[in-house]
Amino acid sequence: MSNSLGQMFRITSFGESHGQCIGVVIDGCPAGLPVAVEEIQRQVDRRKPIAGTFATARTEPDKVQILSGIFNGLTTGAPICMIVTNQDVESGAYARMASQIRPGHADYTAFIKYGGLNDFRGGGRFSGRITAGFVMAGAIARKLLQGIGVEIIAHTSEIGGIKEIPQSYESIKKNVDTNPLHCADPFAVDAMLKVIEAARKSGDSVGGVVSGMAVNVPAGLGEPVFDTLDGELAKSLLAIPAVKGVGFGSGFNSVTSKGSINNDQFIVKEGNVGTVTNNAGGILGGISNGEPILLDVAIKPTPSISLPQNTIDIRTLDPVRLEIQGRHDACIVPRVVPVVETMMALTLCDFAIRAGLIPQVLNHDGKMKSHGSTNLP
Amino acid sequence: MSNSLGQMFRITSFGESHGQCIGVVIDGCPAGLPVAVEEIQRQVDRRKPIAGTFATARTEPDKVQILSGIFNGLTTGAPICMIVTNQDVESGAYARMASQIRPGHADYTAFIKYGGLNDFRGGGRFSGRITAGFVMAGAIARKLLQGIGVEIIAHTSEIGGIKEIPQSYESIKKNVDTNPLHCADPFAVDAMLKVIEAARKSGDSVGGVVSGMAVNVPAGLGEPVFDTLDGELAKSLLAIPAVKGVGFGSGFNSVTSKGSINNDQFIVKEGNVGTVTNNAGGILGGISNGEPILLDVAIKPTPSISLPQNTIDIRTLDPVRLEIQGRHDACIVPRVVPVVETMMALTLCDFAIRAGLIPQVLNHDGKMKSHGSTNLP
Amino acid sequence: MSNSLGQMFRITSFGESHGQCIGVVIDGCPAGLPVAVEEIQRQVDRRKPIAGTFATARTEPDKVQILSGIFNGLTTGAPICMIVTNQDVESGAYARMASQIRPGHADYTAFIKYGGLNDFRGGGRFSGRITAGFVMAGAIARKLLQGIGVEIIAHTSEIGGIKEIPQSYESIKKNVDTNPLHCADPFAVDAMLKVIEAARKSGDSVGGVVSGMAVNVPAGLGEPVFDTLDGELAKSLLAIPAVKGVGFGSGFNSVTSKGSINNDQFIVKEGNVGTVTNNAGGILGGISNGEPILLDVAIKPTPSISLPQNTIDIRTLDPVRLEIQGRHDACIVPRVVPVVETMMALTLCDFAIRAGLIPQVLNHDGKMKSHGSTNLP
Amino acid sequence: MSNSLGQMFRITSFGESHGQCIGVVIDGCPAGLPVAVEEIQRQVDRRKPIAGTFATARTEPDKVQILSGIFNGLTTGAPICMIVTNQDVESGAYARMASQIRPGHADYTAFIKYGGLNDFRGGGRFSGRITAGFVMAGAIARKLLQGIGVEIIAHTSEIGGIKEIPQSYESIKKNVDTNPLHCADPFAVDAMLKVIEAARKSGDSVGGVVSGMAVNVPAGLGEPVFDTLDGELAKSLLAIPAVKGVGFGSGFNSVTSKGSINNDQFIVKEGNVGTVTNNAGGILGGISNGEPILLDVAIKPTPSISLPQNTIDIRTLDPVRLEIQGRHDACIVPRVVPVVETMMALTLCDFAIRAGLIPQVLNHDGKMKSHGSTNLP
Repeated sequence: MSNSLGQMFRITSFGESHGQCIGVVIDGCPAGLPVAVEEIQRQVDRRKPIAGTFATARTEPDKVQILSGIFNGLTTGAPICMIVTNQDVESGAYARMASQIRPGHADYTAFIKYGGLNDFRGGGRFSGRITAGFVMAGAIARKLLQGIGVEIIAHTSEIGGIKEIPQSYESIKKNVDTNPLHCADPFAVDAMLKVIEAARKSGDSVGGVVSGMAVNVPAGLGEPVFDTLDGELAKSLLAIPAVKGVGFGSGFNSVTSKGSINNDQFIVKEGNVGTVTNNAGGILGGISNGEPILLDVAIKPTPSISLPQNTIDIRTLDPVRLEIQGRHDACIVPRVVPVVETMMALTLCDFAIRAGLIPQVLNHDGKMKSHGSTNLP
Repeated sequence: MSNSLGQMFRITSFGESHGQCIGVVIDGCPAGLPVAVEEIQRQVDRRKPIAGTFATARTEPDKVQILSGIFNGLTTGAPICMIVTNQDVESGAYARMASQIRPGHADYTAFIKYGGLNDFRGGGRFSGRITAGFVMAGAIARKLLQGIGVEIIAHTSEIGGIKEIPQSYESIKKNVDTNPLHCADPFAVDAMLKVIEAARKSGDSVGGVVSGMAVNVPAGLGEPVFDTLDGELAKSLLAIPAVKGVGFGSGFNSVTSKGSINNDQFIVKEGNVGTVTNNAGGILGGISNGEPILLDVAIKPTPSISLPQNTIDIRTLDPVRLEIQGRHDACIVPRVVPVVETMMALTLCDFAIRAGLIPQVLNHDGKMKSHGSTNLP
Repeated sequence: MSNSLGQMFRITSFGESHGQCIGVVIDGCPAGLPVAVEEIQRQVDRRKPIAGTFATARTEPDKVQILSGIFNGLTTGAPICMIVTNQDVESGAYARMASQIRPGHADYTAFIKYGGLNDFRGGGRFSGRITAGFVMAGAIARKLLQGIGVEIIAHTSEIGGIKEIPQSYESIKKNVDTNPLHCADPFAVDAMLKVIEAARKSGDSVGGVVSGMAVNVPAGLGEPVFDTLDGELAKSLLAIPAVKGVGFGSGFNSVTSKGSINNDQFIVKEGNVGTVTNNAGGILGGISNGEPILLDVAIKPTPSISLPQNTIDIRTLDPVRLEIQGRHDACIVPRVVPVVETMMALTLCDFAIRAGLIPQVLNHDGKMKSHGSTNLP
Repeated sequence: MSNSLGQMFRITSFGESHGQCIGVVIDGCPAGLPVAVEEIQRQVDRRKPIAGTFATARTEPDKVQILSGIFNGLTTGAPICMIVTNQDVESGAYARMASQIRPGHADYTAFIKYGGLNDFRGGGRFSGRITAGFVMAGAIARKLLQGIGVEIIAHTSEIGGIKEIPQSYESIKKNVDTNPLHCADPFAVDAMLKVIEAARKSGDSVGGVVSGMAVNVPAGLGEPVFDTLDGELAKSLLAIPAVKGVGFGSGFNSVTSKGSINNDQFIVKEGNVGTVTNNAGGILGGISNGEPILLDVAIKPTPSISLPQNTIDIRTLDPVRLEIQGRHDACIVPRVVPVVETMMALTLCDFAIRAGLIPQVLNHDGKMKSHGSTNLP
């Protein structure tokens, strides 16, 4: 373990890919937030495979059930437990090859850590499916953040070497859900699709970059020197399977810049302190500065490929030639997009509560609740 | 919040008295522990009201469902989620009086803390029913502790002023489940039952003391100076509704003793260091010393009584004369007994894992697992 | 370990009885609190032995040094490190008998836990002297609490079987520092002193009870179901050496009461909700209810006595007859009084910050600071 | 706050750049580790500015003092507090411009977060000097890791666009301390020095990449799904001022690779499971796989530059033209090298203790200590 994330807004994840359900408990959600199961459902649906050649064959209805913490349509301050049940579970193919540890997957490390006792079916706890639980919790976090004006959006900015032209927040918002790749640059979509299709045909896979943005983030979020905003964001994002790197603002590009260029000059914008450029990605000294949070997440090529691979059998240590059957994507990047938004929301929400910006009891409009409008009959 | 307890063996509680279910997630359970749902069920059944005049009228089947973390009958190292659903929910009586804050209950403090938005039905999160979730987790903790020889037993040692004659571990074990009061002294049971019946008839209630004992606890558990064994036990026990005090060993009786009497002399017993007496209750400097852990828990008289009581209506602040309808016990003490065992088990298990005494992967017999006997097909 | 306490106002203790210093780091203190070293010194001085026959012979100047976190007389939001150096260290007597484990002390359990490697001189980390660090941090916590009106006071309510007559807050405040026992009942002091003197003459020791009270505590402090206000108070208090039990409100006395008597009726007092009696000790459901917090702490008789005692030598396991030389008190109870206040302050301050009642930036008068009055030149 | 890092091996940082001292408390260090102050000193000295044109002018003796936790040359299991005092403090230049918030620095965000009350002198808590405390703790962590065979080494792999040719562990070890840049490729040093000198002459600064490697890391470290090894490493590394991105293994380069290339094939190497390539950087599913941990850290160009910059005065919000006086480096990258090693050591040590690989009591040779060889006289 540990399957909990956050200090004041803390989620606990449970469930396995081919077990009974995927679930999450949120502890620390303020009382008084209106929550309809449909809102949670909508976010969960966004991470489903999009129809098309590149998507996994597994199709789950993923119907969200809220087990606790909501009363008369409002959060109560009590822990919120939500689950989606697993139904389309066909574990046969996995079982056959469970001892043949798949390159690029957690089969071997999970075997070592849990003494071969982990539920390996469908990747168990290491499946991307686990993120359905994160997304349910993230839907609540986003709603809390919206109450203080924060909006979060992520998009595919690179796939298989094809990069989008950088887009404005408005452009991202407009384009991100108009194509199956969640790409913000409509002119890059075709090329990306071709790269994916080529990989799929050759039994291979490609990776990419998901870029995340949060706007209207108040200055002052982050708890240095160790619980920095960037540090906690990175930790959250690295919990997403296949993420291998995180950069903030100009990130790895800053290393070839100069101080005179990379430093963001301070100015006054409409009465508020802001910066001319945003190479810092909205974070200085581990604390938000009021500019948009900008980050890039490196997604490695999907490790499940059709091409035969060399590996070993962990029971016998004999070499084997592995041909992975079953479901897999030639490119997982677009499905990571809503999960990046989710992890950003969970982290920002936790910091907003730690900073006292979201009170522990909300009015329906996000303000402190008077005694006059309670759940009492 | 916080609805999580423990560092390395951490439980997260969710669910409300009259919501859909009561549940718990265990994070940090070592892999390889055989768990059958029947074992969990047995512990949950022990906390049910015992047939007789003093018991609450609510009867729940409380059928345990394991949602995650068990595969092929063994724990996997993944979070274990378990629930019991609520069925015998008749909230009408509660709703009618929800704004009339009940003396001795958490109605008022919950109202203040959650802005009147908490699920008040049946006490919501403050109901004794919540402890069903603790007990499910405690069943796993006890089994882990049994693997290193630790046994935990609690019993009713005082009710309504009637005290049992102190009993040996063997006597407690023999007698505790032979009477509906979970009392270890058979000769005290009748007098206790009479006191309870008298209270019931007069519409009143009585309190008592539950005594807990853990034997074969290895020396060295506890993490001073702040996470002491006694400190964490006290914190756990005070999470049980109606507990108002905790003493260790001679506890509050030690204050009238002398150093020369209260100090436990060290001797060698069968090759091991031990003490002649056990006024320390097995704990010195916040660390177990190898002698039995002994503790007493003060349970206040059940606050729900039939007698009319003066209180106020929290909406209007007008005085009201409250007559509590619905279910309530004249004495809750016996039902606390399995919960005291539970909280002791949870705390001791957490410390045993922190001390490295329970490894993170178990063999079926409690030893480190070789690669030869995994869950792999 | 663990040597840290608290979630949002977290202290970390370090130092040994006969090492270089006793120290503490506070993390999470809001910025803007005026702190003068003299204020801290005053609290540290209160825990010094009071002149008289019962006091330990060790006399330390205990001059407080602030190493970080204060700038221009104000807290900065950065960690505050404070130390007192050890000077009157004469470890010879301890060293001679270090392998003769003292009954009632942590010598044996520390030996087991740390493999005989702990600094045993003067009790090392298990000495009451460690609490000097707690008291330095508590002085800051008290000042933060005073900013929201909370006052904390403790006093000796029982020594060696002599109980004081219960006193009002005003009476406690008036009397507590007028006698060396920190007793609130002037008529009980003489009898208590005689009991202590008798114990001293016979080479023995006595215990007692310290009662703590906090007034003007806002309703709503405490984070159920596990981080209850009473649970965290109990945990804090059990970190004080020699504490063996804690009760809240009527505590262990409630077990012989009836529900109709023990329940505190709600009324309206000067426009606020309150209770007629306070058997709950100001805590219901783990949350403060606005009435004074009342608690009792059981202190065992000082384990260090002059009378010879039977024990063993931990190196040889041979029986030895131990005569403890060096400094010791016949009654430690009065010296625990400021430490009980300290632990209450630390816990209440942490909960007040968790509840958002103390903001993370204070004005000099305890309110949010405008940009107009900073530390900037 | 928070100024603590780690779960079982937890450090707490305190002190300010121009305050009395920089310090650290380690909680959770096993007992029995031999520690000489000279060993700590050696690591602290490594992070000092290296003689040459690019180094800061501030020269501190940085003499390490151990205040607690060591007895007879061994750790005791108690918290270890260590400090270095600040001496070469000349704050005048900083004070003059404190309200002129420096681009690329934390001046503005700290002002917002701490209401202008933070100790701004020399950057206060946001100065790179704070890392001296990390390094003291890291020296202990490294020694514990060495006891289980783990070695950690970092080096400068890129400065101002000049990249080294990738080097083997042996080559890094041989070359890293032979040049002031801590670069592993001797042939790249000259070009890097020229780039730095050019930046310095033009009043500007350059950034770069520090690469970290840990060898002999046992498989199984990391606590998914949230406390992943990569996630916690990233969080630790982002606590270093000027770090803007972290990648593991092929990191951001993996996004242009294919699954068939990026997947590391499993093989058996000398009886152990290993991989042919190491694009995963030794981490799969958040858990170490036994291959070397490889990571890259992006360091932005030093924000302190001599060139005049546009910014505002935070008191008046007026635009100002800022010329930073005082000490600053044209390239901070080489000084980050020992800090990257430090953060890796702290994180790996914490996980090794969490996994039970380092016991809580060590023999002098790293094994469990018998009762026969203690600190007792």
